[in-house]
Amino acid sequence: MTRPDIFRKCLEYTRADEVKKMGLYPYFKPLSGQVGPVMEIDGHSVIMLGSNNYLGLTDHPLVMARSAEAIRKYGTGCTGSRFLNGTLDIHLEMEEKLARFLHRERVVTFSTGFQTNLGVIGALGMKDDLLFVDRAVHASIIDGTRMSYSRVVKYRHNDVEHLDHLLEREQGPAMIITDGVFSMEGDLADLPGILSVARKHGARVMVDDAHGVGVMGPTGRGTAEHFGCEDGVDLQVGTFSKSFASIGGFAAGTDKVIDYIQHEARTEIFSASLPPASVASVMAALEILQEQPELLVRMHSAAERARRGLRDLGFNVGNSAAPIVPIIIGDSILTFRIWQALDQEGVFTNPVVTPAVPPGQAMLRTSYMATHTDEMIDRALGIFERVGRRFGLIG
Amino acid sequence: MTRPDIFRKCLEYTRADEVKKMGLYPYFKPLSGQVGPVMEIDGHSVIMLGSNNYLGLTDHPLVMARSAEAIRKYGTGCTGSRFLNGTLDIHLEMEEKLARFLHRERVVTFSTGFQTNLGVIGALGMKDDLLFVDRAVHASIIDGTRMSYSRVVKYRHNDVEHLDHLLEREQGPAMIITDGVFSMEGDLADLPGILSVARKHGARVMVDDAHGVGVMGPTGRGTAEHFGCEDGVDLQVGTFSKSFASIGGFAAGTDKVIDYIQHEARTEIFSASLPPASVASVMAALEILQEQPELLVRMHSAAERARRGLRDLGFNVGNSAAPIVPIIIGDSILTFRIWQALDQEGVFTNPVVTPAVPPGQAMLRTSYMATHTDEMIDRALGIFERVGRRFGLIG
Repeated sequence: MTRPDIFRKCLEYTRADEVKKMGLYPYFKPLSGQVGPVMEIDGHSVIMLGSNNYLGLTDHPLVMARSAEAIRKYGTGCTGSRFLNGTLDIHLEMEEKLARFLHRERVVTFSTGFQTNLGVIGALGMKDDLLFVDRAVHASIIDGTRMSYSRVVKYRHNDVEHLDHLLEREQGPAMIITDGVFSMEGDLADLPGILSVARKHGARVMVDDAHGVGVMGPTGRGTAEHFGCEDGVDLQVGTFSKSFASIGGFAAGTDKVIDYIQHEARTEIFSASLPPASVASVMAALEILQEQPELLVRMHSAAERARRGLRDLGFNVGNSAAPIVPIIIGDSILTFRIWQALDQEGVFTNPVVTPAVPPGQAMLRTSYMATHTDEMIDRALGIFERVGRRFGLIG
Repeated sequence: MTRPDIFRKCLEYTRADEVKKMGLYPYFKPLSGQVGPVMEIDGHSVIMLGSNNYLGLTDHPLVMARSAEAIRKYGTGCTGSRFLNGTLDIHLEMEEKLARFLHRERVVTFSTGFQTNLGVIGALGMKDDLLFVDRAVHASIIDGTRMSYSRVVKYRHNDVEHLDHLLEREQGPAMIITDGVFSMEGDLADLPGILSVARKHGARVMVDDAHGVGVMGPTGRGTAEHFGCEDGVDLQVGTFSKSFASIGGFAAGTDKVIDYIQHEARTEIFSASLPPASVASVMAALEILQEQPELLVRMHSAAERARRGLRDLGFNVGNSAAPIVPIIIGDSILTFRIWQALDQEGVFTNPVVTPAVPPGQAMLRTSYMATHTDEMIDRALGIFERVGRRFGLIG
């Protein structure tokens, strides 16, 4: 038998080792405590610009207390799917509270944000349906379309004219799918434009607001609230692993659509439900967000201070309009080198290379929290300036 | 514009409502407390035969205490992927402990068991590869093969000769994928037979031991330990949402294979990591399992008592050999009716209808915990007998 080995690709895989040998490996770096605006990593203190802890609630006393309380009352896990034996009364309470908060008829939750997109798109996208997808959407949307049986039509990033043109040519049942806030560059979907094209062509619109809910809009309802066009969005999905200090995801829409998704999404029916501690964290974070909308103001002001500062220094920050500010570099290895220098000087960022961004568009992703003070941002800007000059990134 | 509405399928969806109108809807039933061997559901006490809490550890004092402690130390969530900013020292500790427990070189963990199969199979299954899959595997394996770019060849359930025949006809790099314990019927994969065919044809073997790890084998290492053939299994995957009292999943194998998966699995790179409380639960449950292997004995003895009792009463329990014992009924509506009668009399089971089982093979799934006493099992058997006779299922 001389059948080739299916594991050959693993035995020949060296990409991670090569970066490790250069001493530049930036991944799977263990943290040893709470994710604060300033924290210890690998034995030195850094300003944390690499988390999605936008509201800074993962170590909020109320969130932690409610989460621990849920363990005492419900135990540590549900050992079954929502569908069969893993629904707790607090799952339903969380869904009702989210629906009220989002001004939607109904919400269904999933165990991860990733599984939300797989389940929702897989359930809705049948044969003969058409999914129009922005080219820059999150990996979980791409994978969701692969779980569907629909034809996928990709339109140029945020290009409403291109979307219009593509819709013009197709007659089948259609849904447009876009991120609200694009996760790597922090730019916003042109929702007013997209909704107008959708209306013209009778297409439905689904917005993945993973980085939008709890972030954008005066009350944190998301990107559509920011633009004042919530009514035009048919289906809003999001995650609990950012502003909501937990893990999991949700889909929000009309009663009929959510009922269908709840009974047909494979990732809902065949996957264990969110643990009690995670559910309680979501509800506590939501309560704090509703009582203290000023957290949103503080987060945006930190991001705006950083964005303006970086732009003034001469960095290319793309079209950022959210608490995500990219520093676009281009080359992957250079990105790793600058990432390392920043880390050593005391700023933790996320290096983002292909496949998360197109080849040649490697960047450092920085993100901001309500708990970042002006002093921290200014200190970080000082470090960006020093390192940026050293690597010739700015003049 | 007269484009058909992509949401039409939702507006026309009535399946759940129909079952609700008959008063038989058995899904998304909220529990209001810990999942014990006997518990309150909907205001009445039931013997819980519908959980996957095999070792009964979700409300174990040590598991709950460690889980709450992790919240105090690390907060409630990681707000990022393992890859970029969501790795804690305890994620690495958990992976090392699992690798030692499973006698494998290395382990990588995922945020759900479902995402484990998507990530692992999606990363390994490239173009020109062949995946040989048992027809009765879990939905997440089927979806995993859809995330791959490989050709999928399905073999008849547990039919080693059929598998041999299909492998004979194909020359490409091949992996056989099977559940260790089949989740609905509780029968075991014929691993000795599968491994012998794999050796003959130079194919790799992946076993999804979601219902095997922490369940089968003298020390709970899984289905291959049960059969004494662990060396032949190349890749073992599993979940934390059953015996490990938490949520999440893992893949265990050689260093090179796991390193590849860790860097290439999209569900690992693009999804938030397991929260601190969930990680701590897994480690505490593992510690208890290693210190008290007698929990396995008690669980199997409860299951064996139920299986023998049900079989003696004349129920069709299929080929069950694990702490999952099906009662095969056939018709879906009859299954819902019997499910309801059992619930009213005080036994909670899981009705399983298509698509989780083939059409016409609807069943009640019962499952057993280390915390079920002989008295509870005997009481449940009394109820099964009464209800079984009333519905003419037994003579």
